[in-house]
Amino acid sequence: MSFNTFGQLFRVTTWGESHGPAIGCVVDGCPPGIELSEADIQPFLDKRRPGQSRFTTQRQEPDQVKILSGVYEGRTTGTPISLLIENTDQRSKDYANIAERYRPGHADVAYDMKYGHRDPRGGGRSSARETAMRVAAGAIARKVLGAEVVIRGAMTALGAHGIDRANWDWAQVDENPFFCPDARAAEAWKTELDAIRKAGSSIGAVLEVVAEGVKPGLGAPLYGKLDADIAAALMSINAVKAVEIGDGFAAAALRGEENADEMRMENGKIKFLSNHAGGILGGIATGQPIVARFAVKPTSSILIPKHSVSADGEEVEVITKGRHDPCVGIRAVPVGEAMLACVLADHMLRHRGQVGN
Amino acid sequence: MSFNTFGQLFRVTTWGESHGPAIGCVVDGCPPGIELSEADIQPFLDKRRPGQSRFTTQRQEPDQVKILSGVYEGRTTGTPISLLIENTDQRSKDYANIAERYRPGHADVAYDMKYGHRDPRGGGRSSARETAMRVAAGAIARKVLGAEVVIRGAMTALGAHGIDRANWDWAQVDENPFFCPDARAAEAWKTELDAIRKAGSSIGAVLEVVAEGVKPGLGAPLYGKLDADIAAALMSINAVKAVEIGDGFAAAALRGEENADEMRMENGKIKFLSNHAGGILGGIATGQPIVARFAVKPTSSILIPKHSVSADGEEVEVITKGRHDPCVGIRAVPVGEAMLACVLADHMLRHRGQVGN
Amino acid sequence: MSFNTFGQLFRVTTWGESHGPAIGCVVDGCPPGIELSEADIQPFLDKRRPGQSRFTTQRQEPDQVKILSGVYEGRTTGTPISLLIENTDQRSKDYANIAERYRPGHADVAYDMKYGHRDPRGGGRSSARETAMRVAAGAIARKVLGAEVVIRGAMTALGAHGIDRANWDWAQVDENPFFCPDARAAEAWKTELDAIRKAGSSIGAVLEVVAEGVKPGLGAPLYGKLDADIAAALMSINAVKAVEIGDGFAAAALRGEENADEMRMENGKIKFLSNHAGGILGGIATGQPIVARFAVKPTSSILIPKHSVSADGEEVEVITKGRHDPCVGIRAVPVGEAMLACVLADHMLRHRGQVGN
Amino acid sequence: MSFNTFGQLFRVTTWGESHGPAIGCVVDGCPPGIELSEADIQPFLDKRRPGQSRFTTQRQEPDQVKILSGVYEGRTTGTPISLLIENTDQRSKDYANIAERYRPGHADVAYDMKYGHRDPRGGGRSSARETAMRVAAGAIARKVLGAEVVIRGAMTALGAHGIDRANWDWAQVDENPFFCPDARAAEAWKTELDAIRKAGSSIGAVLEVVAEGVKPGLGAPLYGKLDADIAAALMSINAVKAVEIGDGFAAAALRGEENADEMRMENGKIKFLSNHAGGILGGIATGQPIVARFAVKPTSSILIPKHSVSADGEEVEVITKGRHDPCVGIRAVPVGEAMLACVLADHMLRHRGQVGN
Repeated sequence: MSFNTFGQLFRVTTWGESHGPAIGCVVDGCPPGIELSEADIQPFLDKRRPGQSRFTTQRQEPDQVKILSGVYEGRTTGTPISLLIENTDQRSKDYANIAERYRPGHADVAYDMKYGHRDPRGGGRSSARETAMRVAAGAIARKVLGAEVVIRGAMTALGAHGIDRANWDWAQVDENPFFCPDARAAEAWKTELDAIRKAGSSIGAVLEVVAEGVKPGLGAPLYGKLDADIAAALMSINAVKAVEIGDGFAAAALRGEENADEMRMENGKIKFLSNHAGGILGGIATGQPIVARFAVKPTSSILIPKHSVSADGEEVEVITKGRHDPCVGIRAVPVGEAMLACVLADHMLRHRGQVGN
Repeated sequence: MSFNTFGQLFRVTTWGESHGPAIGCVVDGCPPGIELSEADIQPFLDKRRPGQSRFTTQRQEPDQVKILSGVYEGRTTGTPISLLIENTDQRSKDYANIAERYRPGHADVAYDMKYGHRDPRGGGRSSARETAMRVAAGAIARKVLGAEVVIRGAMTALGAHGIDRANWDWAQVDENPFFCPDARAAEAWKTELDAIRKAGSSIGAVLEVVAEGVKPGLGAPLYGKLDADIAAALMSINAVKAVEIGDGFAAAALRGEENADEMRMENGKIKFLSNHAGGILGGIATGQPIVARFAVKPTSSILIPKHSVSADGEEVEVITKGRHDPCVGIRAVPVGEAMLACVLADHMLRHRGQVGN
Repeated sequence: MSFNTFGQLFRVTTWGESHGPAIGCVVDGCPPGIELSEADIQPFLDKRRPGQSRFTTQRQEPDQVKILSGVYEGRTTGTPISLLIENTDQRSKDYANIAERYRPGHADVAYDMKYGHRDPRGGGRSSARETAMRVAAGAIARKVLGAEVVIRGAMTALGAHGIDRANWDWAQVDENPFFCPDARAAEAWKTELDAIRKAGSSIGAVLEVVAEGVKPGLGAPLYGKLDADIAAALMSINAVKAVEIGDGFAAAALRGEENADEMRMENGKIKFLSNHAGGILGGIATGQPIVARFAVKPTSSILIPKHSVSADGEEVEVITKGRHDPCVGIRAVPVGEAMLACVLADHMLRHRGQVGN
Repeated sequence: MSFNTFGQLFRVTTWGESHGPAIGCVVDGCPPGIELSEADIQPFLDKRRPGQSRFTTQRQEPDQVKILSGVYEGRTTGTPISLLIENTDQRSKDYANIAERYRPGHADVAYDMKYGHRDPRGGGRSSARETAMRVAAGAIARKVLGAEVVIRGAMTALGAHGIDRANWDWAQVDENPFFCPDARAAEAWKTELDAIRKAGSSIGAVLEVVAEGVKPGLGAPLYGKLDADIAAALMSINAVKAVEIGDGFAAAALRGEENADEMRMENGKIKFLSNHAGGILGGIATGQPIVARFAVKPTSSILIPKHSVSADGEEVEVITKGRHDPCVGIRAVPVGEAMLACVLADHMLRHRGQVGN
């Protein structure tokens, strides 16, 4: 049992607080002989890195990852891989009054309810800063999965404003600050988010992650279901409140004949004619693209005053100054991809343990 | 690691196929000294039992549970509790051709992709019959949680037809065959589902489960999040495709000031003024009602012919005769309650292990 | 985490009390497609079965195992295998006063210290009767390992009276009631144990289990060590107080040059010239025979009066009537073999999950 | 499942190679609110530190531990505690030929059999250097257990030369370079080990660890046995080949009436009149001192030439130069204490999760 580890055979244990000396993780169970260096990890961290547009926090962190163990002469050895990122731009004074006043919608109050003692600097352990290590681990997971598995993510709604799926173009995702696959929607979002940011407010988002090339058979009934593990992995990301696979909630409105993904043969292999299931049946991958969506609530740290209480039980108003993302959903795109990669790498190894290669 | 166990300290391991001699489970980690007999479990099984209305499968199973271990003189001993239900109404011939032809939308094909060998009778291990043991384990979980925790569930949409939440009345849930809290909606659903059933079709559903009286502090960052575990637990139920906590997907459309659950003091305790969060912040329970919703896809076994392939790679049309629920979502209500109960019991014990009572 | 499960990928969960209606286990993680029937399991249970000579308890249990799930048309399906043995010869009245008076050396008092409530009939959960399910699971583990792995056990000392290792003959093990590989020692033990039995006393034993044909590479540093898992598995058997691998305690008295197992090449493979290590280096199997020994303390239930206390805190004398083994070590031979088989099957699957087949 | 983590609720994950930039560990599950600083950990590391006498390796490592997370204002927060020690005295050239030639008795060959790729510098991951992190984690475990639990260790035999238990004096343990409780034996050992060291040889040892003040009830049947977990923990230490609890192997030679620890009442509590069981019955602590002994084999790295093979399959002679302990058992004393502390802390938390405080 563990509170800070995810995965069973590909296991990632993260540690570190937003304003401590460093954050890090240990990746245990990575198979031996895989080529790995910091250069394989850094690009994914750079994608998640703060301070790259006016739509993310202005905290400046180079997020340079170091590999401290588990790699020898450029290849993994099968022993645990320790990754470390030093925290450099901690401005703890910004957060001085977080220690005293609970931010509505934030985990501050819940941590105190549980532990009675917490590191309030920048949200401490509950800060989204922890997700940097998920992204780093996800980069290793991609190496484990190999080049045939392609994992991509995109933001599909800013607040109530969704994309037009007819415009979906993966190439657009890297061309705007939202990881948005619809160029037109991205333009509109700039205006919308500027207004929200200037109002000291924040907004939620919907994200989608897709894995193509996943080997049929990964996953397992009944409590090792691939979709159950994806649901937990995405729900464990800060501020996520909902997860769906394939058609998700929309499947509830379908009739059986509409929802059934019909099959035909093609070149001696089963070919599905649709993908309502999002690539998973009975908890097991079918070889179709795995499709998951998740909802991120608006950032809790806002400049608009809200009723709250202090740790001492006094009724207060809270305004949260400091450097915050007006839409934390944006930077959750690489995090969602990373979590999907980690779940798939784990299930690839688990599948081997169950039925061999 | 495990494929057929859920929970960490309150652990439930289920076994059995739809048409084998029996199904069962082992509940390990139940604390000692709790009063327990079959009579505590049977009412929940009766609620899930098939054949009680024209809207569920006509298979007749008394589902009489036996306790084979772990209880002495009417109280639990702390040793594993073995539960067993004999299968009595197996009509395997109904399923003769399931072995050959994959039902679109069903797990048949995925099991063969993974294992190469499966028990096709009635869906074997992938049958919803397994959920009887979840319900039985959930009844024990309720005893562990104690009377102060109240867990209830309801069906809130049949297909695209949702309830009017203004009509919500928990007392109505036991008055109609849908566990529907809105009496008027329930009437309309009867007509709707009759038509679907007669057409040999099926339909999806949305369900909601609520836990009141949960102690603040249960759950944990970051991979022991209460909401992540609830998401996995609900997603692991047969045919579930989506899970949300609190406002769920709707939270994505909110501004920060709308989503924040403000706090005030009341009788020396923190009182929340709203519950967008669904009772969980940062993965930790706040003491508010825990609210989760999940979507169930339409039953895959339908009388309407669909394109498919056989295990031998031949292209075929599939019609599934036999006894099936036109809306599997209905009987998922007690299952969802049970999964929520199991997750909460597990986290109650885990919380003790982390921070004491 | 679990209190009644052993193994990680090949997982065995046992349940049941000595005098309840039945005992059983669930084997999860067994790969699909393996031929399996009750006939593969029963011979090992028969070997452990009580009442076969005057040197074991006179309780008469046919110990007929039933497979309730996980096997279809004679082959495993990859789903959990449920095994059940009914208890038939329960004479609980023999144990009436065990509920009141703690047997010195027995787990009674410890269970009450922990749980405050226990099933005292025949020792309840702490009875060696539970080991029948270990033996059953071990039979499945042997099938997973395949015919190339040969696992055998023997008793090498009755009390202080050890065998002459020069006389070791595996064929003798089935020719005497002690699983003794030294025919001469076995004869002497008959006289010795008869005297002990008639005196109402009991005696300890040393046992040895050996696995040949184990694939090099099984096991793992540092907390997944094969020898650490074997140590835990053997120490978890009732009444076991010590475990050693290879030379064990004797290795402490060696010089480095004596303990080193030298290597030479033979037919293109590494050949070890000795086996002080017992087939394991750094927690990893080298391909040599895996050799483990363990010590079983004397049966606690004896006819010789001993000082004790009652559950109510009264000072009493305890004599334990009923049917007991004068040397529980004897029947621990098939149990030790089974535990070694389970650990090896688990590590075979884990190895696949780490580095592939 | 995990290869580099030990413990269930008090979980320690170690990482790092002998000659990498650093070694470290993550301690997850430490309860909140415990006073903790580097000063609580350093003294135990100093005890294990190399280069303190002529009887341990001359490698000079200050082993200064840093806490990187999980502690705020001097108290634990319940979040993961990351510990790091930089490696400073790496002389990898000493080990140049280890990469090529397998040291008999060493894990080199087994790692290659398993992984095919390893870090050979100083033994890489299989180096006893990893045990520094066990000692650090053990220091935290002691804080979790509290001052009432006293854990001590001693060396009781150097090679075949055991102590006289009548001379046992805990105060002597810190007065000689062997952690020997018998001053007279320690003197003799100096002469003995000097001769061995000068001969370029090495020798094994027997160690004993004792925990006093352990709460009755810790542990659990049947696969969560306290003694099984202690056996695994001690066996997982480098070079350990045997473990025993209480009388251990000697118990096999006892009669039932000799082995039974009789009980009487004293001040309303149960008092045991002897401790053959080593404080554990049925896997559960009885409140008596917990006593475990373990055997450490002689250091594999010696100056005496031995037959071996190279990674390329050539037959070679191996002499291992470099800096090695002539008796690795000595420095295993603080490691054994630490492992016992970790197991007990874990079981204290598990016990809470099972039955409450």
